[in-house]
Amino acid sequence: MTGEPHGKTILALTRGDPSGIGPELALKAWAAMHQDPEAPAFLIAAEPDHLAVLAQRLRLAVPIEPIGAATDAAALFRRALPVLDSKLTVKGKPGSPHAEDAAGTIASIETCVNLVRTGAAAAIVTNPIAKEVLYRAGFPHPGHTEFLGALAERLYQSSVRPVMLLWSPELAVVPATIHIALKDVPARLTTDLLFETGRIVAHDFRQRFGLAHPRLAFTGLNPHAGEGGAMGREEIDVIAPALAQLKAAGIDVSGPHPADTLFDAKARKTYDVVIAMYHDQALIPIKTIAFAHAVNVTLGLPFIRTSPDHGTAFAIAGQGVADPSSLIEALRLAGRLANECPAR
Amino acid sequence: MTGEPHGKTILALTRGDPSGIGPELALKAWAAMHQDPEAPAFLIAAEPDHLAVLAQRLRLAVPIEPIGAATDAAALFRRALPVLDSKLTVKGKPGSPHAEDAAGTIASIETCVNLVRTGAAAAIVTNPIAKEVLYRAGFPHPGHTEFLGALAERLYQSSVRPVMLLWSPELAVVPATIHIALKDVPARLTTDLLFETGRIVAHDFRQRFGLAHPRLAFTGLNPHAGEGGAMGREEIDVIAPALAQLKAAGIDVSGPHPADTLFDAKARKTYDVVIAMYHDQALIPIKTIAFAHAVNVTLGLPFIRTSPDHGTAFAIAGQGVADPSSLIEALRLAGRLANECPAR
Repeated sequence: MTGEPHGKTILALTRGDPSGIGPELALKAWAAMHQDPEAPAFLIAAEPDHLAVLAQRLRLAVPIEPIGAATDAAALFRRALPVLDSKLTVKGKPGSPHAEDAAGTIASIETCVNLVRTGAAAAIVTNPIAKEVLYRAGFPHPGHTEFLGALAERLYQSSVRPVMLLWSPELAVVPATIHIALKDVPARLTTDLLFETGRIVAHDFRQRFGLAHPRLAFTGLNPHAGEGGAMGREEIDVIAPALAQLKAAGIDVSGPHPADTLFDAKARKTYDVVIAMYHDQALIPIKTIAFAHAVNVTLGLPFIRTSPDHGTAFAIAGQGVADPSSLIEALRLAGRLANECPAR
Repeated sequence: MTGEPHGKTILALTRGDPSGIGPELALKAWAAMHQDPEAPAFLIAAEPDHLAVLAQRLRLAVPIEPIGAATDAAALFRRALPVLDSKLTVKGKPGSPHAEDAAGTIASIETCVNLVRTGAAAAIVTNPIAKEVLYRAGFPHPGHTEFLGALAERLYQSSVRPVMLLWSPELAVVPATIHIALKDVPARLTTDLLFETGRIVAHDFRQRFGLAHPRLAFTGLNPHAGEGGAMGREEIDVIAPALAQLKAAGIDVSGPHPADTLFDAKARKTYDVVIAMYHDQALIPIKTIAFAHAVNVTLGLPFIRTSPDHGTAFAIAGQGVADPSSLIEALRLAGRLANECPAR
């Protein structure tokens, strides 16, 4: 199969909420990638008719090819978008999500995880879902990442601690706490949380990203990293002990660094990944530097999962204006990570 | 005086801690600016001998010219650095500050404020001080900005609320709270603080920066600006009421915006200045974008004050390696603001 550049790696792309921009992005990503020998091939677990109608309406020249198994996808990818047929019918319209589509949104994710678990696909890439739509259908998980964690625990029978990484060629950053109110951040930060986060990040940067000795830089929580306790003691009481434990475990860590001077071009050369203490401390720098092309990667799972760093964008769905850059980068990174990591 | 480009605006530069990088930066700034007809002229309130010895040791070709009054500075600036002679002797060495120099550091600031108050200089630019050195000498103010506020109240007999602005050509941002522990930020944010901050920023952007209708963008405090109260209520309870009051006062405000999507190049076109809720939320984006050339501006004072956005850097003082970019930008901005604002 050396003459077939897409033969090695098949990625499984979920369809996400069918009323969001996910299906449109999938069509645009195929158009941008199917002739590129460096790009990985992918299939999407979705509804062939829905995608075909959308492609026609948006005047995107994307041939849609229903398939029954992932093994058919690689050969197909150069001439058509392989769609692993869900046999469902989409009820929602672009911009108007429908509660009855929730089951298919969830099934697409389960299908893709199963493809990866059985070795039929090399990694999973997820399109955006709308949590509110899934909640109304009884979805019991706080979000996408937690659902993937639960699926992994069920299907792989192993305990899982998912860790969110935002990745771009310029900067990789992990928020140690994520979707909680800022006032709750100081109490949520514990030495155990930071140690476990650092351990998982170091492990996955070795195994997935192929870095023998990844360099982890931790931010402080407070201005100037607390200035020796003058403006907050979390650096001394919580963060420094976690760094000491990580060092003792043979991991290359530095910090806690003042967060404001850690993200310019010169500072970025001194580490491979930053562990930040909270959402905005991590997301402000990467969205400032790499707005359209940052990728969300879930570390700590028994498989590779990437996703674009944006939501369903119902407000612009179906208009043909959605930017596929982040999904394309998510697919490319998944392909790269799948080739870096040991064969599964 | 139309034939003398430096005749209009004389800036008063403080010397800062003489053992820090301030004196070296002043020499380098003069070397970079004295032949530029677009650059403002400046004097420094310092010790002529100290500067002359330093210039010689660093092999900087900067003629030093002692002066007795600011009126002599404009004509001089093209051929020498005008030094308003403190008649003191510096005791500290580069990198080794001396407590006896604190009085001169403070006197230089007072001298420059007086030059501006009497109209002899158009604006004040401050070199970095070391708070710890001044504290040991009995300095009763938390920092530079608070000292300037107290001086302004004493000399101008008016009540003053200094507001810190970080400015660069790419981004201007004001932290509503500054040097406090992160855990104390939520309680410190009040509708009154945000209203007063917005009012001062709008006033000074009109009066100093010459913008008839400055556009102020406020960040939220929480991830995604709280997502309608799901992750914190400060946006609803504290920030939105301040924005409503500012709108009622005729000020162009928007927000509270999610902070992570407010600083990319496209978003930056939608406002003139951001009011951020705390130190890192303001300083991460500007130091990521404009690391070496961001300028600190104090708004809310009865005079214009700018300063470089860095400290004394004792560790590299006296080695000739300090980067004068931020001081040069601070001088240029002070010159620009002095010409924009009404004659005093």
